[in-house]
Amino acid sequence: MNKVIIGVDLGGTNVKTAMVSWDKQVLAKDSRPTNAEGGPEAVMDAIESSVRDLLSQSDLGTEHVMAVGIGAPGPMDWRSGIVFSPPNLPGWENVPLGALMEKRLDVPCYVENDANVACYGEFWLGAGQGTQNMALLTLGTGVGGGLVIFGMLLRGEDGTAAELGHLKMQRDGRKCGCGSHGCLETYASVTGMVRTAVEGLSEGRESILRGQCDDSFNGLTGRMISDAAQQGDSFARWVIEETATWIGLGISSIINYQNPEKVVLCGGMIAAGDMLLDPIRTVAFENSFKVPAERCEIVLAGLGSDSGVLGAAGCALSRFEGGQ
Amino acid sequence: MNKVIIGVDLGGTNVKTAMVSWDKQVLAKDSRPTNAEGGPEAVMDAIESSVRDLLSQSDLGTEHVMAVGIGAPGPMDWRSGIVFSPPNLPGWENVPLGALMEKRLDVPCYVENDANVACYGEFWLGAGQGTQNMALLTLGTGVGGGLVIFGMLLRGEDGTAAELGHLKMQRDGRKCGCGSHGCLETYASVTGMVRTAVEGLSEGRESILRGQCDDSFNGLTGRMISDAAQQGDSFARWVIEETATWIGLGISSIINYQNPEKVVLCGGMIAAGDMLLDPIRTVAFENSFKVPAERCEIVLAGLGSDSGVLGAAGCALSRFEGGQ
Repeated sequence: MNKVIIGVDLGGTNVKTAMVSWDKQVLAKDSRPTNAEGGPEAVMDAIESSVRDLLSQSDLGTEHVMAVGIGAPGPMDWRSGIVFSPPNLPGWENVPLGALMEKRLDVPCYVENDANVACYGEFWLGAGQGTQNMALLTLGTGVGGGLVIFGMLLRGEDGTAAELGHLKMQRDGRKCGCGSHGCLETYASVTGMVRTAVEGLSEGRESILRGQCDDSFNGLTGRMISDAAQQGDSFARWVIEETATWIGLGISSIINYQNPEKVVLCGGMIAAGDMLLDPIRTVAFENSFKVPAERCEIVLAGLGSDSGVLGAAGCALSRFEGGQ
Repeated sequence: MNKVIIGVDLGGTNVKTAMVSWDKQVLAKDSRPTNAEGGPEAVMDAIESSVRDLLSQSDLGTEHVMAVGIGAPGPMDWRSGIVFSPPNLPGWENVPLGALMEKRLDVPCYVENDANVACYGEFWLGAGQGTQNMALLTLGTGVGGGLVIFGMLLRGEDGTAAELGHLKMQRDGRKCGCGSHGCLETYASVTGMVRTAVEGLSEGRESILRGQCDDSFNGLTGRMISDAAQQGDSFARWVIEETATWIGLGISSIINYQNPEKVVLCGGMIAAGDMLLDPIRTVAFENSFKVPAERCEIVLAGLGSDSGVLGAAGCALSRFEGGQ
């Protein structure tokens, strides 16, 4: 039989794995807790057991695996497979994840930035199939990005390219975790959306959200805002429109930067649906040049939450075969 | 003998031409007025006579020319060689410049966006030599951009990529000629710098510049601001620092976007020298991620004002040889 490829999506909460055939068929999937609180060894145990279970369900062993691709949170070095110290993986400090997993599984293991593999997944099997020039934005707790240019994943000279959440959108704007101010992430992430809501409520704006959190507005979540907006709360709708405006302005920069065929959106935020997507499109196209705006489609991820795990497999296949 | 390549830099004021050998030696150069006010025919007469004079000085004819590359102001279509209606070329309306020059010279003619050829020139022969991942910013009346990624000029799907002057830097910021607001160009161009000065003077700031323009601050130029700053005028120095801050923030977005080896600066603005360049570097590096900031050099163009004309030749050679 032809060998299979395994993709791993290492998140702070869950480890997802998928087994993919050389001709892009998804053969099996698994998901289990990351056990992040247990530190690197516990997390690698979870990855290893997930991979082995996936294989044994199909009566396969690691000798049937061509390569394993692991999408991991940054900062990290994709060439060496070393994961530095991701905020959501406590106790990790320069862990040679690629080498250690290779030792455990006796299979070539390739480590990649998680947003990059999500982008590659959409390019390989999802909404970006057939394009040569696309961008992906992950709209979650933070804002991540991935880029395919000339049909190749753009990692940049040090693997740090496509940090689209850190485009500067506002001089002296909101303080960002990266040390700068006014980054897209501070407005366009779920965290940024909650911050917009808290600012509005602090200024005395009326909303049903007031009844759902304490006087300091602790406990407010993106989901609450989204639900309130669905129920017609005008303040919550304004918060979503504000967030969409920032995302749209960020996308207009992407359109003017690389004249892409598609911008693909994924992450928890997109659950808000057309209420978010419609104003994103309007703002993005109004603020870009006409020709590239007419070219670019802004679409939701085609693989749902599987962009990362499938993209990790795709990246591993590409690198195993000597591609970039 | 080996055939030569001709580069043409078609500006609103001057047409510059250069003759380059296949092994990148610059053999001869020429510059003459564009005669833009005479319309397309007069401009093409200027290009043709410049090319023919350049050749005859070396006792060559058009039969010795492999290809001609023309860097022209946008908007334009690099594939068809049609120039739409550039603001600084009055009377031009969908002129098939490539086809018409090919008819006049009986040599393959390739038309490109002027900022893209400047980028290619720096990549091919200038400050970007040896890189595979670089950006160029032209800081003049407006702000143009060019990108080389994976060692190739990134034109994008419609040839409109690298409009780096139209990255969004400020929501509801200054009105831009492109129809949007807060574009980098509105702050980081010479025009933007003058606007910053006029705003400051209107607010009553003291400066020796007051004596150099009328009460409405008409006649103020970038050169005046630069000279006043050199003379120690603190307001003029503040204007330059403000402009540098915007340029630096724009470059921080570029660094986070593509993790480049170099960002090359050219255009009239760079005459301000270190007074401008030092704060640009400080702001750009402070607002980018550490690893790509340490990687990226921010440098002045190596070819001075010849980036465009030499890049036009380089692009033509690449396209003639079947490259991108």
